[in-house]
Amino acid sequence: MTTQIQSEKSLRVALAGLGTIGGATLRLLQEKSDSFEQHCGRPIKIVAVAAKGRTRARAFDLTGIDFEDDALKLAFREDVDVVCELIGGGSGIAHTLCEESLRQGKSVVTANKALLAVHGMTLAALAEKHGGQLMFEAAVGGGIPIIKTIRESLMGNAVTSVQGILNGTCNYILTRMRDDKGGFDVALKEAQRLGYAEADPSADVDGHDSAHKLCILAALAFGCEPDFSAVSIEGLRQLTSVDFDCARDLGYSIKMLGTASFHEAGLAQRVCPCLVSHASPLASVDDVLNAIQLEGDAVGSLVLVGAGAGGKATASAVVGDLVDLARGHKVNPWGCPVSDLKKAKILPEKERRGRWYIRLHVTDQAGVLADIAAILRDEAISIESLLQQGRGPKTSVPVIIVTHETNEATLHAALAKIAKLDSVWEEPFCLRIDTNKD
Amino acid sequence: MTTQIQSEKSLRVALAGLGTIGGATLRLLQEKSDSFEQHCGRPIKIVAVAAKGRTRARAFDLTGIDFEDDALKLAFREDVDVVCELIGGGSGIAHTLCEESLRQGKSVVTANKALLAVHGMTLAALAEKHGGQLMFEAAVGGGIPIIKTIRESLMGNAVTSVQGILNGTCNYILTRMRDDKGGFDVALKEAQRLGYAEADPSADVDGHDSAHKLCILAALAFGCEPDFSAVSIEGLRQLTSVDFDCARDLGYSIKMLGTASFHEAGLAQRVCPCLVSHASPLASVDDVLNAIQLEGDAVGSLVLVGAGAGGKATASAVVGDLVDLARGHKVNPWGCPVSDLKKAKILPEKERRGRWYIRLHVTDQAGVLADIAAILRDEAISIESLLQQGRGPKTSVPVIIVTHETNEATLHAALAKIAKLDSVWEEPFCLRIDTNKD
Repeated sequence: MTTQIQSEKSLRVALAGLGTIGGATLRLLQEKSDSFEQHCGRPIKIVAVAAKGRTRARAFDLTGIDFEDDALKLAFREDVDVVCELIGGGSGIAHTLCEESLRQGKSVVTANKALLAVHGMTLAALAEKHGGQLMFEAAVGGGIPIIKTIRESLMGNAVTSVQGILNGTCNYILTRMRDDKGGFDVALKEAQRLGYAEADPSADVDGHDSAHKLCILAALAFGCEPDFSAVSIEGLRQLTSVDFDCARDLGYSIKMLGTASFHEAGLAQRVCPCLVSHASPLASVDDVLNAIQLEGDAVGSLVLVGAGAGGKATASAVVGDLVDLARGHKVNPWGCPVSDLKKAKILPEKERRGRWYIRLHVTDQAGVLADIAAILRDEAISIESLLQQGRGPKTSVPVIIVTHETNEATLHAALAKIAKLDSVWEEPFCLRIDTNKD
Repeated sequence: MTTQIQSEKSLRVALAGLGTIGGATLRLLQEKSDSFEQHCGRPIKIVAVAAKGRTRARAFDLTGIDFEDDALKLAFREDVDVVCELIGGGSGIAHTLCEESLRQGKSVVTANKALLAVHGMTLAALAEKHGGQLMFEAAVGGGIPIIKTIRESLMGNAVTSVQGILNGTCNYILTRMRDDKGGFDVALKEAQRLGYAEADPSADVDGHDSAHKLCILAALAFGCEPDFSAVSIEGLRQLTSVDFDCARDLGYSIKMLGTASFHEAGLAQRVCPCLVSHASPLASVDDVLNAIQLEGDAVGSLVLVGAGAGGKATASAVVGDLVDLARGHKVNPWGCPVSDLKKAKILPEKERRGRWYIRLHVTDQAGVLADIAAILRDEAISIESLLQQGRGPKTSVPVIIVTHETNEATLHAALAKIAKLDSVWEEPFCLRIDTNKD
């Protein structure tokens, strides 16, 4: 009889996925079960797991826990209150499992940013309709409690911008390129060797992972629908050691930033490598760390820095969500009812202002810089500095231009003209200079 | 009839204190009332305020809000669910009001660190007994959501240390002393001129405010009783420009840190100016900013930086607590029942290890450094560096010693012997070198 009461009182959890995050979550829940009972007033109990390879040797104890080969069965188990979806992937079984679990009135905890960025609205609507909760602290920033901060702590604020270093793989590669003065390929190999990058690194280095996370943050911060398709995305494969040297000399770090800012004319969301002033708190966030900076009209600037990935740090966030559920906390997945979320207007390119760093490769001969400067003048782009990087036996040299503030449409028009000059050897490359404003 | 239903559904708030924080809270609640209804599912309504000077001209609208001259009356109003105590002070009316409000079954939101540091246990016990909530996000770190982070987000972690820059006044004075190369008195005057320091600055510059905040953080992080009397406190009045010059040359910033760390042998809590390595995320947190760094066994290192004071930033935290209450969130004030909090053993001095920076003023003559080095050798304190700062027409010179790791008891024994040397002109001054470990 005691067991019966205990089991009714427990928060009964099913874990789908026993990979790095799933395994770490299971271990955390087992190791600290006494602590959860003390802090939540009731136990958190893992009743079932689902994973491939039932007979695989695993570094944790599954005694007393049911094992399902088919994750979807977790959605229909009557002895489960919460399904933790730690399988990953923006579609397929992860998607089906989350939808079906919510439809069955269960709560869902997930670390799945790809899923939320694209299906976050329908999942939230299902949670609202059937009375479950949808929690996703682990989806952005690993162990950094950024979702809760926006959705709960900053409710007294109108957030005007949110930006961050949202992908540890990119940040590690950028740190290596800066410190080792090597190229992208060498840094990527080192990241892969250490397990920080996948064999196919494109989701990370081409910016899609950061973009998924950014549109989740933007939706929460600005009360709009997550809109992955509205994020401008540039990867970091085009960066060279010249850029790191010049950035340093100019007083900047190069960081892969996701930035969302809210303007009267619309919402700007972008992921791209940026020049970040050494004075910015993001400039010194290195290696695999993540960081998020928010601007709120009451709180001012708030910065959170921590481990953005890794099994234990991400499990810390998953378990934080489970503790909230065990304590009976209830909050709309996006902070307010789905019906109140509006599709944000996209800020037009001509309204997107900024300063830019431009790298050109030009023939080392008289008159070239005058031609380039004339094009910029004709487009009314004001030059802050223009420097030729060294002279030597080569017939071409890099030229670095830093602009004053202009808008993106004008910049692209100028670059298109510059690209057509005979003396310009390759497509002009440009990097946004972060102003923490737009 | 509609009004009646609305009023039952609202979270009905009484504000005690209309100073900087109280006024900013009132304004935030009024300006964003639509947003709260959307995000909480019900309005947050200010039904009453209490303050001195009923007839005083104020920059906000009190129409429709009852005004009480006696704050204690708020505790007994039947139309109030939550009392926001924004009067301040560790005793007197603030204390009585919080106790009585909780005793009446109301919830209390407070920014009062002095009160919580000393009476936090009895207040939490009253909240538990009578069914109210006790919320105090605004008590530490102003707008930084550090209380919620420890009490909710990091529940999957055993926290091993928590430290931070907890007082904006101190941080501003230290920043000025470093940048302007002036003395403490000049920097203090500038802080007072800008409204960052009180006419009587002792609560800030002598470390008591930081100590109040630190023992609140330690109680939450380690699940122990807040124990203000167990915090070792040193102020920053003894710092001189020599210290800033030497710290910079050695690769450190000087920061006023509150540090709490948990060891098998006991809990160490201290507030003192420290040398912080330039590589630490705390080293570059300047001016009036606050920052808190936590180490958790799952999340690793987590750093939060933001505005530690000011009306709007602190009001942001107060309103975050009110939103939690409006959403029906319930959590024990210290994260677990009061009966589970234990009084932590204090780490004995001989177990408190660290590295130290020592500044001496000595007669500029042969043999002095040998005498000092011999005393350190006899106490088995290993010297990392020993440097005499300049030589000149003066008969005394500063000598700076940096030690390898030793324990605090040994250090103090050595300093007592050094102080007795005829060639040593004043009491030796020492600063802990932060290792983010103890």
